[in-house]
Amino acid sequence: MKTGLHHELKRRSLEEPYGRLLDLAVWEVGEGTAAVRMRATEDLKNIFGSTHGGALFSLIDEAFQLASNSHGILAVALSVSITYGAAPTAGSLLEARATEIHKTKRTSTYLCEVQEVETRRLVATAQALAYRTGKTIEF
Amino acid sequence: MKTGLHHELKRRSLEEPYGRLLDLAVWEVGEGTAAVRMRATEDLKNIFGSTHGGALFSLIDEAFQLASNSHGILAVALSVSITYGAAPTAGSLLEARATEIHKTKRTSTYLCEVQEVETRRLVATAQALAYRTGKTIEF
Amino acid sequence: MKTGLHHELKRRSLEEPYGRLLDLAVWEVGEGTAAVRMRATEDLKNIFGSTHGGALFSLIDEAFQLASNSHGILAVALSVSITYGAAPTAGSLLEARATEIHKTKRTSTYLCEVQEVETRRLVATAQALAYRTGKTIEF
Amino acid sequence: MKTGLHHELKRRSLEEPYGRLLDLAVWEVGEGTAAVRMRATEDLKNIFGSTHGGALFSLIDEAFQLASNSHGILAVALSVSITYGAAPTAGSLLEARATEIHKTKRTSTYLCEVQEVETRRLVATAQALAYRTGKTIEF
Repeated sequence: MKTGLHHELKRRSLEEPYGRLLDLAVWEVGEGTAAVRMRATEDLKNIFGSTHGGALFSLIDEAFQLASNSHGILAVALSVSITYGAAPTAGSLLEARATEIHKTKRTSTYLCEVQEVETRRLVATAQALAYRTGKTIEF
Repeated sequence: MKTGLHHELKRRSLEEPYGRLLDLAVWEVGEGTAAVRMRATEDLKNIFGSTHGGALFSLIDEAFQLASNSHGILAVALSVSITYGAAPTAGSLLEARATEIHKTKRTSTYLCEVQEVETRRLVATAQALAYRTGKTIEF
Repeated sequence: MKTGLHHELKRRSLEEPYGRLLDLAVWEVGEGTAAVRMRATEDLKNIFGSTHGGALFSLIDEAFQLASNSHGILAVALSVSITYGAAPTAGSLLEARATEIHKTKRTSTYLCEVQEVETRRLVATAQALAYRTGKTIEF
Repeated sequence: MKTGLHHELKRRSLEEPYGRLLDLAVWEVGEGTAAVRMRATEDLKNIFGSTHGGALFSLIDEAFQLASNSHGILAVALSVSITYGAAPTAGSLLEARATEIHKTKRTSTYLCEVQEVETRRLVATAQALAYRTGKTIEF
């Protein structure tokens, strides 16, 4: 049981400077998994008026960061591949979920999906790879 | 010559809501290329005090967006693969450059790199694929 | 119902030159999905005696090719990101499965996994993106 | 100077079972770089008569394998993202080149390109990430 760690990761995520800038709201942190929400606001628009790809990626990356560190061993991102589906509806609430699909001593892999919460429409998917440093997380 | 378009893309990038949120500064837009700068400020930090992967990706994505639309045909992102190198030094100025390496009627591919401007140290690289809609860009 | 098409795709896969070279055996083709098997033989070894990454990718790519064409509209590969987990046991039977996770008029996205059939151990995962040409498949 | 190692990597590549199956011909191995050639023969065709994506990937992967091991430290593939450009002309000679763009103690990143040798036309590009085990290569 790592509920203490998971609670602390949530708390850190809510206080994270970058997360506050984008108004990310951590929803869940479990063993090898995490879910984070973000609203597709005006502030996140690109030059064509759609939600910026960087904002969608950031939402995924926050979920990935939390999931990959949920075992208590410090993990750092090595690579992420994102594929975009449909542009989200303006103003819609989005949820990214990262799910661990593989873990070795040194690396772990996550499948990540962003959906519109209301319609369950898929907005983007990603595959993310982390390096597990072997160091225990100490806040 | 598309200097009018390139100038307009720069102007739009500077006024873009998401770009303003992250304080992205477009540096150059040319035929199939673009460069964008961002400072690794406190606001962009993740829960471990490093620059958030989402911020680095966003910098790359802005350069990709500008480069892929620099031909005057509306392009949308299909997929991006990012690989992280070294974490940027706190406070350092970063520059992302997107360079077109392939273009067909329907798709185009970009190599993107983020470097620290002062040290030229490589922070991240990405390969990005755009779908070219065939529609002329009209602002 | 596209059982005629799916049967024909299977038949073509079994007769495919490259598939015969690697001894790929299509296992299943359904709407948006496909499974293909391959044995990790001596012939597929790399310079260090492990199964070559190109062979694992080829197995995935065959499943992706069949799944992306299973709707009867000609699809071509745009990009694939593969992440390697554990090296397969020498001589083991491997199965790649491609599952459609998103589809628009122009593109479709697949999650692909390779497992050892006997142990269900995950060997590699991939995310694959296809361009849907709009042309009906005619053999 | 690692010319002894580079010569040995070439020799091993030429004797590699999988390389022989696809008729891969190593062209060059240098510090952080490698080039490998393959002809787009009938044997490599997919169900639609084009060169199989798995064959193109395998060519890239062989160059990546050699480049990532060219420093004398055993490296294993972590992830590769490939983007396809134009289908190669039937019968054409193809060359994949892997170039190191980043290296840390634990990982290294390569840009890979496949071109038709005669026309210099770009067929595919990839970004590849290796894990450096720290073990000295001993054949």
